[in-house]
Amino acid sequence: MPVMNDEVPGPDDFDANRPRGEFDNITPEDFVRGSGHHNPPGWLGPADIDRARRQLPIAYVEIVPVRTDDLGRVNRVGSLLRVGDDGAIERTLITGRVLFHESLREAIARNIAKDLGDIALPVLPSGLQPFTVAEFFPTPGVSEFYDPRQHAIALCYVVPIAGDCKPQDETLDVEWVDPRSEDLDRFVAQMPNGHGRLVRLALAWAGV
Amino acid sequence: MPVMNDEVPGPDDFDANRPRGEFDNITPEDFVRGSGHHNPPGWLGPADIDRARRQLPIAYVEIVPVRTDDLGRVNRVGSLLRVGDDGAIERTLITGRVLFHESLREAIARNIAKDLGDIALPVLPSGLQPFTVAEFFPTPGVSEFYDPRQHAIALCYVVPIAGDCKPQDETLDVEWVDPRSEDLDRFVAQMPNGHGRLVRLALAWAGV
Amino acid sequence: MPVMNDEVPGPDDFDANRPRGEFDNITPEDFVRGSGHHNPPGWLGPADIDRARRQLPIAYVEIVPVRTDDLGRVNRVGSLLRVGDDGAIERTLITGRVLFHESLREAIARNIAKDLGDIALPVLPSGLQPFTVAEFFPTPGVSEFYDPRQHAIALCYVVPIAGDCKPQDETLDVEWVDPRSEDLDRFVAQMPNGHGRLVRLALAWAGV
Amino acid sequence: MPVMNDEVPGPDDFDANRPRGEFDNITPEDFVRGSGHHNPPGWLGPADIDRARRQLPIAYVEIVPVRTDDLGRVNRVGSLLRVGDDGAIERTLITGRVLFHESLREAIARNIAKDLGDIALPVLPSGLQPFTVAEFFPTPGVSEFYDPRQHAIALCYVVPIAGDCKPQDETLDVEWVDPRSEDLDRFVAQMPNGHGRLVRLALAWAGV
Repeated sequence: MPVMNDEVPGPDDFDANRPRGEFDNITPEDFVRGSGHHNPPGWLGPADIDRARRQLPIAYVEIVPVRTDDLGRVNRVGSLLRVGDDGAIERTLITGRVLFHESLREAIARNIAKDLGDIALPVLPSGLQPFTVAEFFPTPGVSEFYDPRQHAIALCYVVPIAGDCKPQDETLDVEWVDPRSEDLDRFVAQMPNGHGRLVRLALAWAGV
Repeated sequence: MPVMNDEVPGPDDFDANRPRGEFDNITPEDFVRGSGHHNPPGWLGPADIDRARRQLPIAYVEIVPVRTDDLGRVNRVGSLLRVGDDGAIERTLITGRVLFHESLREAIARNIAKDLGDIALPVLPSGLQPFTVAEFFPTPGVSEFYDPRQHAIALCYVVPIAGDCKPQDETLDVEWVDPRSEDLDRFVAQMPNGHGRLVRLALAWAGV
Repeated sequence: MPVMNDEVPGPDDFDANRPRGEFDNITPEDFVRGSGHHNPPGWLGPADIDRARRQLPIAYVEIVPVRTDDLGRVNRVGSLLRVGDDGAIERTLITGRVLFHESLREAIARNIAKDLGDIALPVLPSGLQPFTVAEFFPTPGVSEFYDPRQHAIALCYVVPIAGDCKPQDETLDVEWVDPRSEDLDRFVAQMPNGHGRLVRLALAWAGV
Repeated sequence: MPVMNDEVPGPDDFDANRPRGEFDNITPEDFVRGSGHHNPPGWLGPADIDRARRQLPIAYVEIVPVRTDDLGRVNRVGSLLRVGDDGAIERTLITGRVLFHESLREAIARNIAKDLGDIALPVLPSGLQPFTVAEFFPTPGVSEFYDPRQHAIALCYVVPIAGDCKPQDETLDVEWVDPRSEDLDRFVAQMPNGHGRLVRLALAWAGV
């Protein structure tokens, strides 16, 4: 079943009991790149994240990557192809949860770097007002957005990508389509659980 | 120390292990009023919420209550006086976390009813795009917003109140000031940890 | 050809040369109701408005009227049926230009009162940030929005209507449809020149 | 008296009676650079613009130029120093009207190029929802924004500048200040008629 990608157990799971002062010397770089290629601070092990997902809504960022021209007009919209938990190929946007003590900007940059690589050169928005807030519920039909694993509140942003994209980790490929072409319908139809709907809303907001 | 008000232990704390289907028959009324005057579904006991607050950002709504005229212009902005954890009187906005399986609209309505009573007649926004997103960190100085208890991501809304307000629970009083008067400066100065800043941003967004 | 409704010659056309001080004593009521049932101040005669339409973009407000429930959720979206310039019946939104020295709020209230009557009880937004800006060009194909008469820049708002609607003037009827029903597709298809597109964007913004 | 800069008579004033088809072959480049270093299409001579300013609201764009870091955070905010109509030096933002048949994006790019030069490399927003709409009235006190020449409706955007700025035409200098420094207060105080207020609102919207 295609779901939003998220954390899997890592060797250096976050110790939730470490003192908060530990975050005093963390830089954006630690969140965006991880320190020493380990997991970023704020990462949770599987038991902790599973418990949290049954207890409270999880804060997410969801990014619609686009290519723009000199006037800021969207001429390509991007998506990721990846292998889902069930082994089937799925089409997704860039999405991930906000970690403890991580800013929204760091979460946006980290998730883009995770999926598109280090030279994607994303142009982060000047303001953090999202174009929409998507509420994903674990119960089908409650809203237009469904996530079988959790209740997620996703702040949604359109982010122009100025550099080169290299698929990372589980991402097989990054595909771009002209939002005015017929390819868009196919593209959107392949994004389950409301993500395709977010693409349409993003494009409408962008005036395409 | 003045903090945002939030949950305290109740007699019927949410059982995080109950099956999700349990949420299938819940209505907005259950969230907004609680079922049988008990806590709403999704409520967490003190151990669970304390753990969550050390592990991941908590999703909040923060509401700036206003009175408006026929043309929608803000002519009063409201705040609450309450007794803080340290016994001192503090001035706050309406704020609270979003519960598991609760929609943003339900969270907004529930928190307003909790603080202003059942006949406040709030006029909820048609769209859920917040006027800003405030990031509260438990480390002072990381952002303009500080919450010693947690990392909170607050979606902020201006909500006109059309009815009568009756202070509830810990709320001692609801005060309204003319945003064009000198009272506003005093009012804002009494709201710590960035909440006063949100009032100014809300008023700027409202064109006052 | 269906176009946005707009001014027609009136008996007391605005004298563009009258001194500006004349606007000092004008109240919102004068714009919204007209003074003594005449045209509101700022109204232009046909020669002046025709010249302006060939010379510069005209500022418009465009309103998507909705019915909402207690939680602010849109459960009906409205449109107007009117007789167009060519005698055919057309489906439109509420739209009109902003007059000289008229505020956006006054323009919104005036255009709603003109089309829905005096007891429609519109709930004007607290903030004036539009959900989108639609650029109508007199040349087909330049944008998704087309207006054969002019270049119009329309600030678009969703406005809940709390009262009763009585069709006014050229408006034959006000129709409401459930945005989740199949009627919406028919409804949108009957709105030419991009207005149907604005309905879809408004509903997407409202989370429907 | 400090006012927003705007058009002055040029040698090839726009002929308002030329057929609309003339705009069919115009490219963004014509608006942004002018064709052959003449005025852009849609330019009005002094008699026409003066008449329009007494008759209807004029559509404007107003740009707050900023410098941002890798995470999109504003670390500098810019302003222009220029000689006003009365010979005094005034501090302004980038502002200008939208021309007939010009898109908002073209108007933003043209006004930035006019004030900052051709290699400023502005990063135009993906969406055209403004952070606010400022209503300038020719009557003092009607709103927070005042323009003695006209009623202007200004769509306001924050635009990061990635390149080098070279003051153009009447612009004497482009100055950048750290929005977290005390210089900001002086800076804002020197911008009359509400423009300083827009800087503060832009920074609040940007989360500074």
